[in-house]
Amino acid sequence: MGDQRTSLQEWLNKIQAELDLVVKFWTTYSHDVENGGFFNCLDEDGKVYDEIKYTWLQARQVWMYCRLYVEVERFHTPDILEAARKGADFLLEKCLIKQNGFTRCPFSVAKDGATIKVQRTMFAECFYVLAMSEMGRASTEEKYKVAARDMMRQIKHWCLVDTEGLGRENIPGSNFSTSLAVPMMAYCVWEQMLTCGINWSDDAEVLQKWALQKMLQHIQRDGQHVLENVSDLGEELPGSAGRLQIPGHAIECGWFLLQNAMMNKDKELAEKALTLFINKPFEQGWDKVNKGIFYFLDVDEYSPTQLEWSMKLWWPLNETMIAFLMAYQYTSDSSYLDKFQTVAEYTFEKFPDKQHGGWYGYLDKKGELTHRFKGGPWKGFFHVPRSLYMCEKILKKLL
Amino acid sequence: MGDQRTSLQEWLNKIQAELDLVVKFWTTYSHDVENGGFFNCLDEDGKVYDEIKYTWLQARQVWMYCRLYVEVERFHTPDILEAARKGADFLLEKCLIKQNGFTRCPFSVAKDGATIKVQRTMFAECFYVLAMSEMGRASTEEKYKVAARDMMRQIKHWCLVDTEGLGRENIPGSNFSTSLAVPMMAYCVWEQMLTCGINWSDDAEVLQKWALQKMLQHIQRDGQHVLENVSDLGEELPGSAGRLQIPGHAIECGWFLLQNAMMNKDKELAEKALTLFINKPFEQGWDKVNKGIFYFLDVDEYSPTQLEWSMKLWWPLNETMIAFLMAYQYTSDSSYLDKFQTVAEYTFEKFPDKQHGGWYGYLDKKGELTHRFKGGPWKGFFHVPRSLYMCEKILKKLL
Repeated sequence: MGDQRTSLQEWLNKIQAELDLVVKFWTTYSHDVENGGFFNCLDEDGKVYDEIKYTWLQARQVWMYCRLYVEVERFHTPDILEAARKGADFLLEKCLIKQNGFTRCPFSVAKDGATIKVQRTMFAECFYVLAMSEMGRASTEEKYKVAARDMMRQIKHWCLVDTEGLGRENIPGSNFSTSLAVPMMAYCVWEQMLTCGINWSDDAEVLQKWALQKMLQHIQRDGQHVLENVSDLGEELPGSAGRLQIPGHAIECGWFLLQNAMMNKDKELAEKALTLFINKPFEQGWDKVNKGIFYFLDVDEYSPTQLEWSMKLWWPLNETMIAFLMAYQYTSDSSYLDKFQTVAEYTFEKFPDKQHGGWYGYLDKKGELTHRFKGGPWKGFFHVPRSLYMCEKILKKLL
Repeated sequence: MGDQRTSLQEWLNKIQAELDLVVKFWTTYSHDVENGGFFNCLDEDGKVYDEIKYTWLQARQVWMYCRLYVEVERFHTPDILEAARKGADFLLEKCLIKQNGFTRCPFSVAKDGATIKVQRTMFAECFYVLAMSEMGRASTEEKYKVAARDMMRQIKHWCLVDTEGLGRENIPGSNFSTSLAVPMMAYCVWEQMLTCGINWSDDAEVLQKWALQKMLQHIQRDGQHVLENVSDLGEELPGSAGRLQIPGHAIECGWFLLQNAMMNKDKELAEKALTLFINKPFEQGWDKVNKGIFYFLDVDEYSPTQLEWSMKLWWPLNETMIAFLMAYQYTSDSSYLDKFQTVAEYTFEKFPDKQHGGWYGYLDKKGELTHRFKGGPWKGFFHVPRSLYMCEKILKKLL
């Protein structure tokens, strides 16, 4: 027990120090002083190699700054709040367009906010809600809360009524499939609004219920495997899309569900979260030869069709660190702590850049770095700091 | 000279034998006897691991069967023609939909032809033209020629008038960029209609001129580098998209241009094709340490943002084999023959499956196989047989 405490304390120290470095890297290099908002594409030394702005990454960075400001004392500084506000105002003022009678967030914009691309999904809008609601909490300003509330109502419509406003047509052969990402995002924004205490609907619970039920529909194959895409009715889809597994995604979903189960003291849900969404995907996704977590798998062991399936990305490891530490917190079962340490050791060995600060993101199957940048189209200021912040929080409670 | 002739004869034998095996693999496993058309997703042993049909792969297979039927005596068989017809009829009867007043080809359909996805590009329609025109030539039947002609007129409209019918909106920040793929496809269908002797427009030449000019616009950086994406006006675009190079693609474009230059006895164009589209991209794209051609590069040597940038795919090597052999045919410069042999040796060592027949498609940076399948969402019966057929044809002329 004494040993374990020491070890937890060491992890806490290590994680706190790393979070400080990551915050320093992004606050130093990513702020667009001229136009507002953040540069997302940062090379290893912080140099901006592309000025394009991805609104979902902008929004995640706002959320993360605000969350750190609100919950971590050493980040409760005017500088962090000011940086968050500049990002939030860029989103509010530059990243909203009207389309089919809805207010949409483009997927990407030029540095001055001119729309580049609009996706036929609701993900950018969900991250916008995270940003606005947390900014409302951090600043206590009403305008951000109103923005979150208004978008939230649209999201509820897209989830529960129809997705026509997103520019998708009903197509006969499409099997009306849903990816795990959709209910995860819906749950995430629902939980976020609750955390921020923003009342946005008299029957907000309907969205929680829908999202939980939809997430659990991804348990397939006699309750043994989480599959990424299922039919609207919760049946397995044919082909590669139907057999697809994204272990890191299932594990992230796992800690969402575990958190929900802890909140509602729902033992049955906690058991599902631990067994099916955390343990099993980790067992399948962890590369026993080279370490790391495979990005994509096919449940019947065909080759996944994604070219990058065998790469080891940073975020599945970040999410797994949260999941195992939370599982340990909930169960006190030391095997979870062992697994946390295995994953965290590999992650800390491979991703942080000791020279410039900040984390790399992409390794090949054998663990060699494939990409030099710290920020790119799919990597912003989110999974790394969220994982470090959440692990810090849980470790502090455990100690 | 004696040695070289032997070597060319050996290559011819090797290539003919391999083409026979590849045709055998696909004719054995890919035909959907029940619904018509072809299965695209074939595992290493020919097993169908997904019944989804990609119309552009269907169309390419029809084109390839017809081309082999028309031009290679040993494939001039009723079986090949019949297989092509079943594919062509599936496309004609099941893979056309009406959208915004245009006739569109979906990107993917279910095995019975029910639409799954429609893309906002004209690529599926271009491959449909390849299929219909070559089927018209092989069968001499008018209905296929008419189908090709009708679609060709739409393609000309999308290239020269506007792309609104493709479901794309004009978006202010998008820089109106064009990828090299668009004029390459336009040129390809123009050349195809010429080859098949189908008269589809009184000013068909306008499309050729447009496509050639647009392809050459991708020469950037003081005429030194081919970049994949440029602005509509032919200027370099900012950021990663603007700096992107796809060496295999430039090289494929290179032999399109060289072929055009040979047809028109245009020495200046031939010189550009050889120097800028074939030699330089090969020099930059060939991995001097591990062999193979990188999939994506950044002209300023930042990390490309594509996760699969360092992978070695089959098709850039297939296209490079054609390009170097054609360059040798045109120049009689033996250094091209040396390069052909270097590339062909690596390609033949890595991709053909001696056990089941057919070619694998994907290797990691170091040349290890990453995907087991022979056919998938981005790999059909096209680059391998086209390369082998064209190399066979050129080698026969050289001998």
